Amino acid sequence: MTRTDKPILVFQSDFTYAEGAVSSMYGVVKSVDRELEIFDGTHMIPRFDIWSASYRLYQSMPFWPKGTIYVSVVDPGVGTSRRACVARTHDGHVIVTPDNGSLTHVLQRIGIDEVREIDERVNRYPFTRGTSVFAGRDVFGYTAARLASGIIDWEEVGPAYPVNQIVTYRIPSPSVAGQQAHGIIEICDPNFGNAWSNMEWRMLAQIGLDFGSTAHVRIAHQDDTVFDQDVPLARSFGHVPKGTPVLYCNEVMNASLALSQGDLCRTYGIGFGVDWTIELASR
Amino acid sequence: MTRTDKPILVFQSDFTYAEGAVSSMYGVVKSVDRELEIFDGTHMIPRFDIWSASYRLYQSMPFWPKGTIYVSVVDPGVGTSRRACVARTHDGHVIVTPDNGSLTHVLQRIGIDEVREIDERVNRYPFTRGTSVFAGRDVFGYTAARLASGIIDWEEVGPAYPVNQIVTYRIPSPSVAGQQAHGIIEICDPNFGNAWSNMEWRMLAQIGLDFGSTAHVRIAHQDDTVFDQDVPLARSFGHVPKGTPVLYCNEVMNASLALSQGDLCRTYGIGFGVDWTIELASR
Amino acid sequence: MTRTDKPILVFQSDFTYAEGAVSSMYGVVKSVDRELEIFDGTHMIPRFDIWSASYRLYQSMPFWPKGTIYVSVVDPGVGTSRRACVARTHDGHVIVTPDNGSLTHVLQRIGIDEVREIDERVNRYPFTRGTSVFAGRDVFGYTAARLASGIIDWEEVGPAYPVNQIVTYRIPSPSVAGQQAHGIIEICDPNFGNAWSNMEWRMLAQIGLDFGSTAHVRIAHQDDTVFDQDVPLARSFGHVPKGTPVLYCNEVMNASLALSQGDLCRTYGIGFGVDWTIELASR
Repeated sequence: MTRTDKPILVFQSDFTYAEGAVSSMYGVVKSVDRELEIFDGTHMIPRFDIWSASYRLYQSMPFWPKGTIYVSVVDPGVGTSRRACVARTHDGHVIVTPDNGSLTHVLQRIGIDEVREIDERVNRYPFTRGTSVFAGRDVFGYTAARLASGIIDWEEVGPAYPVNQIVTYRIPSPSVAGQQAHGIIEICDPNFGNAWSNMEWRMLAQIGLDFGSTAHVRIAHQDDTVFDQDVPLARSFGHVPKGTPVLYCNEVMNASLALSQGDLCRTYGIGFGVDWTIELASR
Repeated sequence: MTRTDKPILVFQSDFTYAEGAVSSMYGVVKSVDRELEIFDGTHMIPRFDIWSASYRLYQSMPFWPKGTIYVSVVDPGVGTSRRACVARTHDGHVIVTPDNGSLTHVLQRIGIDEVREIDERVNRYPFTRGTSVFAGRDVFGYTAARLASGIIDWEEVGPAYPVNQIVTYRIPSPSVAGQQAHGIIEICDPNFGNAWSNMEWRMLAQIGLDFGSTAHVRIAHQDDTVFDQDVPLARSFGHVPKGTPVLYCNEVMNASLALSQGDLCRTYGIGFGVDWTIELASR
Repeated sequence: MTRTDKPILVFQSDFTYAEGAVSSMYGVVKSVDRELEIFDGTHMIPRFDIWSASYRLYQSMPFWPKGTIYVSVVDPGVGTSRRACVARTHDGHVIVTPDNGSLTHVLQRIGIDEVREIDERVNRYPFTRGTSVFAGRDVFGYTAARLASGIIDWEEVGPAYPVNQIVTYRIPSPSVAGQQAHGIIEICDPNFGNAWSNMEWRMLAQIGLDFGSTAHVRIAHQDDTVFDQDVPLARSFGHVPKGTPVLYCNEVMNASLALSQGDLCRTYGIGFGVDWTIELASR
């Protein structure tokens, strides 16, 4: 029987579900311990997009029970000297991942209490010597399974290293100045096309904005302004006419922008990352 | 351990699996009760397509064990006054969904015995106050989990309201007149490109058609005929040459049209809904 | 509770997850026996692509625990005279599939000890008489569930037939001649765009190649050469500059070709199958 005293494993990757890789990875987990419970996070992170991997961990992991082990495999440096690691978060989750920037958002916003480098001499699936390209199956999934199962304990993952050595992107903090708030577009919703900023919704109150107000919104890619409009604040998309922009509080309680039943990011060519800035002004 | 005396939860939505929303939603379920078992219905319903949500419930839910709780989240009106509800079907399933038309097919063909509006004052995930855009996670998934777990009982969902107040599409009933049968194209199979009508297969016998016969098939969008051909009836696609049309009994025992190993809907530009009519005549 | 003394069921198909078919199929399994555990292999095998179904079984199934029942449903001949079968592999797995070529790779490289034709008079879901187009739900999934559950035993699947009657593709064996190795491109990775040959990595040593060497690689479609370059051998993609070709040992320990962080198959128009040959020469 699956056992609820053993942590759940949740996997995210850029593998897609189009071929057999996810299946092989899960097969190894179940071969280590039949009782483990596995969930898909997402396997559709854009190829090699470490930033998105980092964001998806921050977005989703906090909603899982404490103790859940999240395995994240966006790993363009597989087989090179980047560290394979296991991190314990401040809110009680465990992340198994290449230490390549994937821990950025969790480290900055949730906190990481301890990190260990996976010792591949002991924590490597023993039946696939010769290949170095599928760490998701042979190292990350295998180690996560053994940890969840109790076959290895936390210390047996491998040697601890300083949390401040974790590889991270530099993300500028959002800020308020006078009647303006500044931040970045941190991610685009790939399905609904909404643009999510890194500004917490409560920052908007500091510049006098609330549901029912109108904000002036400017989004730029470096020096190139791509969106520059007055936009109403509303609780959700259905409160504005179809096809019009709306500023709302998204699922992680940050300020976000949508076209009601449209696709804002595609319509305006909006992307995400540190070069995509957003400026809100009350009027 | 997962517990088989607790209902299975099956989720469908238009979220896709491309980002972290499904994961967050399932994380909340497992945080409510680790023992619950969760399955994907589909998360690839076209964006905002309530009709398809309704059809997929009708297509799939009957094959699950009685008691299964199906959570359907295609919800363009999230955060507005549309009701969030839980319905008990006549065949013993439970559906948690916005009451926005998603219950149409199940109501008309299976029957709904009772419906209750979710009381969000008690049945709302308590840790995400401020956001109103992710009812899948905060209301529908959360309520389904608490109901499956036994934390709330049926009455504690919220107040009952009359079944005849459920929001529905009007779908004309299929009919037979002389040697002709009339209906609509109710859904297109997005992968194989088959066109599924709302005519039960047994209606074809009433106009003298059976496997081996030839029917004249006309499909029109409003007044515009897009398909007008003689088509053989066969048990499956492999009984006609590759690339030719075939009329067959589909998986829900309705009359359907395919191009053998082709894509009928794309080839002929066929869509679905009340404006897409199909006419069968025996020859 | 799910029971770990019953085999896991893993499903692969060309259904996609875009509509309700996978859900219906799994619902039948859980209706047969609530305790069974189900995993997705992949449901994104290209439509009607039996070769890919065969390859995905070979790629993934060996990583699952012995006893696992893999259900493969790429079935363009559904409802015709092709056999529905259950095969026992030499390494202790069970495959439920149409006998249409899907067993090719497993038969040739792992071995099949016994095969039985499913007797649909007893092993067919009894509630959907009239339709012949969804054997995944009504025959393969249903039979797999009953077998996993112990409702039927191995003999009750149906009559055994000779393993040498299993339908297979003819795949030429890879070979070494002098300083050259010959094989075919057996599959393309649909996401990362790598080309996987059927040559075991250890064959490369026979022609003097090892990590750090350079090979001359020629890939041709019939007589048309599409790739003809010197390529370094490396343990993984990160050891060569982004965008350049690399020859590496893939996850099934075969020689494979990639563009580092690129898409080799799309860039060079490379496909897979017996008409796609690859030739490696040491320099």
